Amino acid sequence: MSKFIVIEGLEGAGKSSAVQYVTDYLKAHGVSRIECTREPGGTPLAERMRAIVKEVHEEQLTIQAELLLMYASRVQLVETRIKPALREGTWVVGDRHDLSSQAYQGGGRGIDTGLIHAIKQAVLGDFKPDLTLYLDIDPALGLQRARHRGELDRIELEQLSFFERTRARYLELAAQDDSILVIDASQTPDRVKAAIELALDSRICIPG
Amino acid sequence: MSKFIVIEGLEGAGKSSAVQYVTDYLKAHGVSRIECTREPGGTPLAERMRAIVKEVHEEQLTIQAELLLMYASRVQLVETRIKPALREGTWVVGDRHDLSSQAYQGGGRGIDTGLIHAIKQAVLGDFKPDLTLYLDIDPALGLQRARHRGELDRIELEQLSFFERTRARYLELAAQDDSILVIDASQTPDRVKAAIELALDSRICIPG
Ligand SMILES: Nc1ncnc2c1ncn2[C@@H]1O[C@H](COP(=O)(O)OP(=O)(O)O)[C@@H](O)[C@H]1O
Ligand SMILES: Nc1ncnc2c1ncn2[C@@H]1O[C@H](COP(=O)(O)OP(=O)(O)O)[C@@H](O)[C@H]1O
Ligand SMILES: [Mg+2]
Ligand SMILES: [Mg+2]
Repeated sequence: MSKFIVIEGLEGAGKSSAVQYVTDYLKAHGVSRIECTREPGGTPLAERMRAIVKEVHEEQLTIQAELLLMYASRVQLVETRIKPALREGTWVVGDRHDLSSQAYQGGGRGIDTGLIHAIKQAVLGDFKPDLTLYLDIDPALGLQRARHRGELDRIELEQLSFFERTRARYLELAAQDDSILVIDASQTPDRVKAAIELALDSRICIPG
Repeated sequence: MSKFIVIEGLEGAGKSSAVQYVTDYLKAHGVSRIECTREPGGTPLAERMRAIVKEVHEEQLTIQAELLLMYASRVQLVETRIKPALREGTWVVGDRHDLSSQAYQGGGRGIDTGLIHAIKQAVLGDFKPDLTLYLDIDPALGLQRARHRGELDRIELEQLSFFERTRARYLELAAQDDSILVIDASQTPDRVKAAIELALDSRICIPG
C-alpha cells in the first residue's frame, strides 16, 4: 500500500531539498508512482488560497481568516489530489501538511489548540500522514538560508519570536506523536540526506 | 447605539433592492453614518475569497473548502469592517451574513449543523446581527429574476432541489430565532418595501 510522507519545518529548514531526497529514495527502492504536493496550495484553487496567505497586502489578514484559508486549501488538496492518489496506489510526498497549522497558527499565532483541532476534525476527520519528518532548525539560521533564495513573503517577514514559538510547538508535538521524527536540519546537506534515509529505512516498508 | 441589520434570501429574492430600502429608511430617520457590506466579500481580501467561491472552475471546489472560505471571508469582514464601524457608531447593512452559511452549506449542501456551528463559534464567537430580514421566495421565481440580471455564477447554477433545501432551512431557522423576520418577497417591489419598513418600525429604535 502506498503511503503519505510529509516534510515539515521552518522556512529555510531544507524542506524542498528533503522532498527530493525522499523521492529519490523511493525511486531507488522501486516505487514508480509518486506525487509531490505542497501546502498551502497544490491544486489550482488551493494555490489561489495560498496567494492570499503569502502575498504582502495593505489589508491585514486576520489570524482567524488565515487559519481557515489554510484548512480550506488543505481539505481541497486532500480530497482532490492526496486521497485519490493514495487510493490508486500512488505514493505522496508532501511539502508541509497539518502539523504546520498546529505549529504556526497554534504556536506562532497563539490560536487555541482546541479550536484548531475542532476545525481539523470537522473537515479532515482522522486523515493523517503515515510519516512526518520534521526538519528542526534555529529560525535565525533558517531565515538566513531562505533570504538567499529571494524576497521574503508575508509569513517569512514575521519576527524571530514568532518562529521561536512555532519551533517550540513543532518540538512539543513531535515528542507526543510516534509518527513524527525529528531531523537535525542544521547539518550539512549530505548529513541531512543520510538522516532522512535512515529514518525511511526504519519506518517505511516498501513491498518488494 | 448603531446596529447591524442583515438582508438574507435566495438569489433573485431582491436582497440588493432591500439593502437600498433599509438604507433609505435609516437616512429618512436621521441616521447619517451607514456602511453597506456584502458576503462573501466586502474587503479586498474577502473579495478574492468570494471570487474562488463564485467563479465557475474546471476543478471542483469541495463543500468543506467552500464552507471554510465562507467563514474566512466572514471573519475578515467582521473584524476589519463591521466591528470597527459599529464601535464608532456607524450602522451596518449587510447583503447576506452568517444565516446564508447555515442555509446554503447546512441545508443546501447537507453539511452537519454541529460542524458549522463549531467553526462559527471558533471564529465569530457570539457576534450576531441585531436584526435579519429574510426575503422568502420560491427558488424558481428567484432564479428567473436573477437570470434577467446576467450570467449565473457557480452557486446560481445549482439544481432547483439545492435551493429548495436551502429555502426550507432558512424558514426553519427563522422560526427558531426572534431576531429573524420573514418577508414575502414574491410581492411587488412596493409591497416588499412597505413590509420592510413595517419590520424596521417594529424592531429598530433610532435614538432621536
Ligand atoms: N542542510 C543545508 N545546509 C545549508 N543550506 C541548505 C541545506 N538544505 C538546504 N539548504 C539551502 O537553504 C535554502 C533553503 O532550502 P529549502 O529546501 O528551499 O528550504 P525550505 O523549503 O524548508 O524553505 C536553499 O537555498 C537550499 O539550497
Ligand atoms: N419584488 C420584486 N418583484 C419583481 N422583481 C424584483 C423584485 N425585487 C427585485 N426584483 C428584480 O429581480 C432581480 C433580482 O433582484 P436583486 O435585488 O438583485 O436580488 P438579489 O440581490 O436577492 O439576488 C433584479 O432585476 C430586480 O430588479
Ligand atoms: Mg520550500
Ligand atoms: Mg444581490
